[in-house]
Amino acid sequence: MAAPDYAALGFTTLDVKLDGAVLIVLQTRSKEYNTWNGVVPHELIRVFELADKDDRVRAVIVSADPKAGAYCGGAALDPKKGWNALFTPEEQREGPHAHRDTGGRVAMAIYKCRKLTIAAVNGHAAGVGMTAMQLPFDVRFIWSGARLSMPFIRRGIVPEATSTYLLARLIGQSRAMSVMLTGSTFSPDSPALAGLYHQSFPTREAVFPAALEFAKEIAASSSQLSVAVTKSLIQRPGDSIEENHLLDSFAIRTLGPGVDGSEGILSFLQKRAPKFSGTLSKDLGPWFPWWREMNTKHRDTKL
Amino acid sequence: MAAPDYAALGFTTLDVKLDGAVLIVLQTRSKEYNTWNGVVPHELIRVFELADKDDRVRAVIVSADPKAGAYCGGAALDPKKGWNALFTPEEQREGPHAHRDTGGRVAMAIYKCRKLTIAAVNGHAAGVGMTAMQLPFDVRFIWSGARLSMPFIRRGIVPEATSTYLLARLIGQSRAMSVMLTGSTFSPDSPALAGLYHQSFPTREAVFPAALEFAKEIAASSSQLSVAVTKSLIQRPGDSIEENHLLDSFAIRTLGPGVDGSEGILSFLQKRAPKFSGTLSKDLGPWFPWWREMNTKHRDTKL
Amino acid sequence: MAAPDYAALGFTTLDVKLDGAVLIVLQTRSKEYNTWNGVVPHELIRVFELADKDDRVRAVIVSADPKAGAYCGGAALDPKKGWNALFTPEEQREGPHAHRDTGGRVAMAIYKCRKLTIAAVNGHAAGVGMTAMQLPFDVRFIWSGARLSMPFIRRGIVPEATSTYLLARLIGQSRAMSVMLTGSTFSPDSPALAGLYHQSFPTREAVFPAALEFAKEIAASSSQLSVAVTKSLIQRPGDSIEENHLLDSFAIRTLGPGVDGSEGILSFLQKRAPKFSGTLSKDLGPWFPWWREMNTKHRDTKL
Repeated sequence: MAAPDYAALGFTTLDVKLDGAVLIVLQTRSKEYNTWNGVVPHELIRVFELADKDDRVRAVIVSADPKAGAYCGGAALDPKKGWNALFTPEEQREGPHAHRDTGGRVAMAIYKCRKLTIAAVNGHAAGVGMTAMQLPFDVRFIWSGARLSMPFIRRGIVPEATSTYLLARLIGQSRAMSVMLTGSTFSPDSPALAGLYHQSFPTREAVFPAALEFAKEIAASSSQLSVAVTKSLIQRPGDSIEENHLLDSFAIRTLGPGVDGSEGILSFLQKRAPKFSGTLSKDLGPWFPWWREMNTKHRDTKL
Repeated sequence: MAAPDYAALGFTTLDVKLDGAVLIVLQTRSKEYNTWNGVVPHELIRVFELADKDDRVRAVIVSADPKAGAYCGGAALDPKKGWNALFTPEEQREGPHAHRDTGGRVAMAIYKCRKLTIAAVNGHAAGVGMTAMQLPFDVRFIWSGARLSMPFIRRGIVPEATSTYLLARLIGQSRAMSVMLTGSTFSPDSPALAGLYHQSFPTREAVFPAALEFAKEIAASSSQLSVAVTKSLIQRPGDSIEENHLLDSFAIRTLGPGVDGSEGILSFLQKRAPKFSGTLSKDLGPWFPWWREMNTKHRDTKL
Repeated sequence: MAAPDYAALGFTTLDVKLDGAVLIVLQTRSKEYNTWNGVVPHELIRVFELADKDDRVRAVIVSADPKAGAYCGGAALDPKKGWNALFTPEEQREGPHAHRDTGGRVAMAIYKCRKLTIAAVNGHAAGVGMTAMQLPFDVRFIWSGARLSMPFIRRGIVPEATSTYLLARLIGQSRAMSVMLTGSTFSPDSPALAGLYHQSFPTREAVFPAALEFAKEIAASSSQLSVAVTKSLIQRPGDSIEENHLLDSFAIRTLGPGVDGSEGILSFLQKRAPKFSGTLSKDLGPWFPWWREMNTKHRDTKL
């Protein structure tokens, strides 16, 4: 794949640029509280699918203008169409089994991106701003003043974007029930959200710079192969300790003698910073992915 | 189903009444520390099976008289029979494969009740008072002075009532091991129980009123359909993120254009409180439940 | 099995002795920061396999000399061989599918040991010192000044020893990602590790004595059968609440009328300390284990 020129891809709701090995994705609908219109999710999916394949990228940060009203205020609602605005004409015609939630498609694109993904949440967040825009990321940074809510039960619908799968895995079912079955607004330091955020900051302005510095440090000192396989082992660990043992044995036996494994141990023994040159396109090998994935895309021809 | 008159059902160990949309279940064996005799579990199962089907009910609270010695002190033990008191004559005759633990049957009735369930723990709790009487609920309120214990390993038995399944899912396997493999007495603010309780209160007297106010607020402002499906999506999320995506896509496509989805978005856009009229009996549809359930009841003819 | 004389077994990297019902395992490579050479993992596997079968043992503690530089500093690295030092000649010859990670084999031996297992971490820990030497234990005690790291992504490899399976189960996927995808050094009281440690202590010297007292108290007052089955129910709870109900019903129906169940209820009613005499070799019965285990050992003939 030719390396994409992100600035030239014509995104209209995102400002995307590569800063060294860190892909910075800033939402640009600040005046609209960065709500999702019909375009946003498809641009997000495209960014994360490109970042997954672009060997130059080692980390992806999603953030917002700290002066925006919100990190992401949820779906942009159309008073005339109601929730039907979420469904394509084909989905309307064919019925519930034909629907593929756009929040979930974004969440899966982020979850499956094999680079380090970081949500730098420097404003309030509601609905899809809490689900797809936060839960599938590897690490979340937060402004401690943010108001966070998943008000789905108060809107006659349910939490979407694979959030009922992700939240309980991330912080346990007890907290997931507390958050989702109240639909209340929570502070980042609420006990109900304990464990969700890697770090919190007292001002909106501090969140993104800290996330960027964090991303650059890890990008400079970690193996792209190690990040991809570690992340996937945590997400798809196998069904038992024995199955995980077979997986991580294979992974370490494959990566250890490889280009990054060799540099990793050599630099450590020489007490110097490593210079990892391995890339997913050249060095990952045909054994990855090791899991068989359910196909959810048979209707996504336009994506 | 005709709406049950809970006061007329002849419960002898529970005081059950409907307060608006909240079903209040108070244990009445205060002098006996609300221990479980042979009647208690069957009355609890009946209450939760009725609440599940009664469209008037949106939330269920279980609590105790705050002047009681305990929220629930465990099983009422019979010095002559020992643990055999837990087994029916048929189970005694047929052996271990015929036994169905009553604590587990209660836990499953609570877990499967499609309404918001709240344990208002306003006293000490031990054994089944910690397992069936707390873990299967959606949300737990607690008196901060409560003494909590699961002393099974110190009694020659094992934690029952599906607690080895539930506790690790609720707060993680590390804490579950700490609690269950010590059999010690814990305070609600012990790190080993972090995440288990939605809110704690300094006095026994404060717990139930807070739970009731909480239940009423949610009952008044949430969709019965949304609560039922959200709860079940958290409990049965599918085996992978892809499977969850198919489930929540179907749910949102079905509920969105429905009676509560329409009211949810309309009330939000009109900046007014919603009035949800959808009910499980009329509006849930034949797609629910989506999971295939293992039958554990083939011997429960008398229940 | 004849009761082993641990002192006579010729361990060269471990000091192993039975103190009452507690097996104390002290690492002796203090000068080498208790790193793992080629011998350590095989001695650990042997100890835990023996402890599993030795009816005298009710708890196992692994610890280090508090004056050592580290509880366990990870793998002993060979500058000439790199990570290849981890692989046997046969594994080198046959390729990745033939490799069985020694860290994982140790982790599984600890995880499957049916006695209470305690890691008394009285020094710094890195790599396998964080994974196999901590995560598979039931309970972890820690010195609050310990520096803890899993730097795998900074070494070109991946977390091993079944740690990608265990860590997310123990404390949730969000924290597991924070720890493993940064490769940073954490303090035991870091929010990223919340829930991992049962108790922390301000000095290195306090950790082991506290763990020993804890182990002795539980060993003296708990049933060996109850500990084994409780631990396994938490580790292998079944795939659904219904399956867990069938498992714990069977367990309680079997253990309740048994030697320890009878003593447990009798001692409780008589308000005296129990004297449990049940042992795994005599009293556990053929129904345990209830799960079917993937065989990972077909190449471990020398183990």
